[in-house]
Parts: sequence; C-alpha cells; structure tokens
Amino acid sequence: METFSSRLLQAAVEEFSRLPGIGKKTALRLVLHLLRQEKEDVIRFSEAISRLRQEVIYCTQCHNISDQALCEICRSPRRDNTVICVVEDIRDVIAIENTGQFHGLYHVLGGIISPMDGIGPNDLAIDSLQQRVEKNKETIQEVILALSTTMEGDTTNFYLFKKLKPYHVGISVIARGIAIGDDLEYADEVTLGRSIINRTPYQNSLTK
Amino acid sequence: METFSSRLLQAAVEEFSRLPGIGKKTALRLVLHLLRQEKEDVIRFSEAISRLRQEVIYCTQCHNISDQALCEICRSPRRDNTVICVVEDIRDVIAIENTGQFHGLYHVLGGIISPMDGIGPNDLAIDSLQQRVEKNKETIQEVILALSTTMEGDTTNFYLFKKLKPYHVGISVIARGIAIGDDLEYADEVTLGRSIINRTPYQNSLTK
Repeated sequence: METFSSRLLQAAVEEFSRLPGIGKKTALRLVLHLLRQEKEDVIRFSEAISRLRQEVIYCTQCHNISDQALCEICRSPRRDNTVICVVEDIRDVIAIENTGQFHGLYHVLGGIISPMDGIGPNDLAIDSLQQRVEKNKETIQEVILALSTTMEGDTTNFYLFKKLKPYHVGISVIARGIAIGDDLEYADEVTLGRSIINRTPYQNSLTK
Repeated sequence: METFSSRLLQAAVEEFSRLPGIGKKTALRLVLHLLRQEKEDVIRFSEAISRLRQEVIYCTQCHNISDQALCEICRSPRRDNTVICVVEDIRDVIAIENTGQFHGLYHVLGGIISPMDGIGPNDLAIDSLQQRVEKNKETIQEVILALSTTMEGDTTNFYLFKKLKPYHVGISVIARGIAIGDDLEYADEVTLGRSIINRTPYQNSLTK
C-alpha cells in the first residue's frame, strides 16, 4: 500500500516490520535512523544479527544459548551443581541471573506444556532433564521449577514432578505471593489466598 | 549490567538497543525472535539493512531517497513539474504520497531551521532549492511549504519566503486548521483561531 521511492528502502522497512510489535511506521523510523548512522555502525549491526543466527549454539546440557558445547554457566566451577532451576526459555535465565540470588545450574525447557497451542511434553527438553537428573542423581539435591504461574505452568510442574519423583531429589516451586511494593488491595484473590497459606515466619523475611 | 551466556547474543542485543525507542528488554525480545526464525530469513533481514546503507543514494534534484541519480518521482513523466512541495524529510514525502492528493515534485530540506539544535540554513538543502527554482523559473508556478506547524517551521517558512520571493513564483503553505474528525472543544485556541481567520467558502469544502 505504501509507496517508497526506493526498492532498497522498501525491502528494509518490510524486513523490520516483520519483527514482533513493530509496525510499518516504526519500521520506517528505524530504517531512516539507520540511514543517518555511519556506514561501519550499520554494517556492524547487520553482521551482529547474521552472525548470531549462524553461529549461535545451544548448551548440550542445559539448552541455554551458548558459544561453546557447554554454556558459561554449566562450565563455571563457581556454580552450585547440586541445584537445577528449570525455566521456560532463555529470557528467564537472564532474568534470574540478573537477580543475583541463584548460583546453581539451569535447564531450559523451550516452552511449557500447552495443549491449546499444540505443545506437548515431547516438544520440550523434558526427556533430557530426566536423563540429566538420572545421570547426576548422586550430585543433584534439588530441582527448582521456575515456570509461569499460569494453568499451563501448573500442568507442566505436575508433569515434571511425576517424571522426577523416582529419583528422590528435592522438588520445589518458586514462591507465589504478593509482589514486593504491591498494594494488597490490588492483588487478585488467588494470589492473596496463596500468600496467606504459604506465609513465612517473620524472622525469615527480615533476614532476606 | 546484564549477563548473557553468549557473546553473540550480547552483541546482537546491544546493537538492537541502540535503535531509537528500543530498550534492552525489547532488544532481547527481538533478538530471541530472530533466533527462532529460519536462517535464510535472518540473513535476508541482515542483508536488507547493510545493502540499504551501502547502496542507497539521494536524488540529485529533490534529495529524496532513491536508487538512481534522479528519484522515481522526479523521473516520472506523469508528475506535474510546475509545483514543488518543500518538506523536512523523507517521511513527509511518504506521508504526502500516501494521501494521493499531490502530483507535483518534492524538495527535501533535510530538517528545519532550529537555532536551539544548532541547525542553520546552511545545514539544509535551501541553496539547492533556490538554484532549482532559479533554473526552472519558467516552469515552476508554485512552491508549497509543507513544514511542521511549529515555531521552527514558521521561521523556516519565512526564511524560504524571503529567498524565493525574487523569482516571482507562487508561494503557499499547507492549511492549518481543525483536523478532520476532531472535536472543536478539544482544539487548542491558536489552531481554532487560525481556522476561523482562514475559513473557506462552504462550496469549496463540499467539493473537496
């Protein structure tokens, strides 16, 4: 529908507007921004993208994004290999790493069980988690399930719980409750109810 | 601050977050999206960007973005070369083209006079507009100033008016008034005042 005076411009705008959340107008704004940048900067941008897609590999142990067969976290001698935190995707690894509160290893499932979206257990890295726990059952003491607090997350938690039960490792889920800084008034009933059931001793919350 | 398990990922996220209006979180979301796409699609994206920056040229006559020395609009025999519409940037050309209401040629200034941002007349394609009007003064009947309706736009309009006055071509500015579909109640006083001063005969607005 839009008319551009240059096929190069048209192509670049079309490519950008394929990205999620980026419409034609934003795409054009980004492309015109790139046009005003130094040539080397734009080439570096373009190469960062194509190199990432072509050279990136996934950690053979935890499926996190990596530059080598084992990712930095799995390779690190400073990480606690007795705890594995199971997450949906790479973004969750980054989010948890940024809290600075977790020093164990990860396992990236690549999604959660969601029959509505046609995602079953076989589409996820669940078998590899089971094998990993089986192989390291002498070392691993705890598996933390850090999935979305949605029905799909709960379903996946339950499925993983059943799969991992035979190995006698501790299985925990991340705490659900009122977010820090939130007003009780605006919390939904389910969260508020759970936060009362799973209350922690006062001492505990002070020392954290 | 953020820790990524892959330098390739880090580089791509950093590049994306340099774009205007794109923060670290959005950058990561876009990069993870690209990672899930087919390799060929990502390479095509990357190439569209680097080719654009390396191969794009600007029309020698109107400074619009182009694939050749003269842009498609300047080359077209179907465009009315008696009217030149002066705009700030390429985006305005696209916006006006999309209205389908203008069939003349353009002149892209590359900005407007803005002493606050250190942009003076010499930073803009004003000399080339003057030369263009001088060279084609037999053909050109009207120059339409379609700049922002801001103080900077008004200043630039006045500057251009003085520069072009000697050539005895018609000089007009785009109509300012109440946007179509807008409630009078919410219009600012200056716009509303101008729209009363510059009222048009009823006939005129019916036939448009």
